[in-house]
Amino acid sequence: MEKGNKIILGIDPGTNIMGYGIIEAVGKALSLLKMDVLKFDPKTDAILRLRDIFIGTTQIIEEYNPDVVAIESQFYGKNVQSMLKLGRAQGVAIAAAAQRGIPVFEYSPRKVKQAITGKGGASKEQVAGMLKHLIQINETIAYLDASDAVAIALCHHIQSTRMVTSTTYSGWSAFIAKQPDRVVK
Amino acid sequence: MEKGNKIILGIDPGTNIMGYGIIEAVGKALSLLKMDVLKFDPKTDAILRLRDIFIGTTQIIEEYNPDVVAIESQFYGKNVQSMLKLGRAQGVAIAAAAQRGIPVFEYSPRKVKQAITGKGGASKEQVAGMLKHLIQINETIAYLDASDAVAIALCHHIQSTRMVTSTTYSGWSAFIAKQPDRVVK
Repeated sequence: MEKGNKIILGIDPGTNIMGYGIIEAVGKALSLLKMDVLKFDPKTDAILRLRDIFIGTTQIIEEYNPDVVAIESQFYGKNVQSMLKLGRAQGVAIAAAAQRGIPVFEYSPRKVKQAITGKGGASKEQVAGMLKHLIQINETIAYLDASDAVAIALCHHIQSTRMVTSTTYSGWSAFIAKQPDRVVK
Repeated sequence: MEKGNKIILGIDPGTNIMGYGIIEAVGKALSLLKMDVLKFDPKTDAILRLRDIFIGTTQIIEEYNPDVVAIESQFYGKNVQSMLKLGRAQGVAIAAAAQRGIPVFEYSPRKVKQAITGKGGASKEQVAGMLKHLIQINETIAYLDASDAVAIALCHHIQSTRMVTSTTYSGWSAFIAKQPDRVVK
């Protein structure tokens, strides 16, 4: 039996900016606990920046005590060097969760976009726009990396609760059109 | 002022096998404390393997309490997916050290080979062969990933003690040919 509420930390890892979003699900009600970014000085030594990612992620985990961490995991990129850097940032964030025994799930950007908007090729702006219909966001979205992280957390919530089955799956937008009462106002 | 002895942990990160080697430098004398590998089941989920890398690296750090960690950092690879995986493994190992405030240094494979054999293009076997002349290894080298990790630790030692200056630098082989008394028998 799962406990009644579940806190999901979504992370959009990066070496210059790391978006994070924390959502809480209590039954069918979803609420946003926090969305923000950690920024790292590109002029700082790469190893020290990874240390900062580890420390920052650990602090977020200590503050919000998530039950699960969901990260965006891009498996395709422009070049091998950028992928190595991205992999390092992902690895550090995963280690911060692993250190506390928190399960980590990964979702491709396409999967996240598909889950939120119904379209795997949606833009970050479209994802951010749709998010506002799914979860109450009281603040202006200052960073798309932050709203992306909320989308990742929400994607995990959708996957894990299987509110949308794979056979009829067409994303949240189609889902809420059919069941508007499930949307958090 | 640095303390008299220095323990260096060398790591050759990987998602299937991670080599590690721990050397201790007391003045000019070098000794090998341990060389081995951690092996990870390729059939295990990628995230769980990263957790195992974190736990394994943390255990090694707790047991040997290194002053510094040196990792091999390959910046070029065949494809973006393998680089992402390698980056993750590196990131996790770096996080394990960062968590304890241990400084991390990275060296390219070419730099390590150059430092040990004098040739940046040396094979793993040549590096392993040369290593035996530089530090007493009482065991058979079962894994080249393990001896590679010892080479990484030794490379850091050479760099940090600046026993070979950059202007006259031509690797350990040339160095010990001139100063055989510095070699640990």
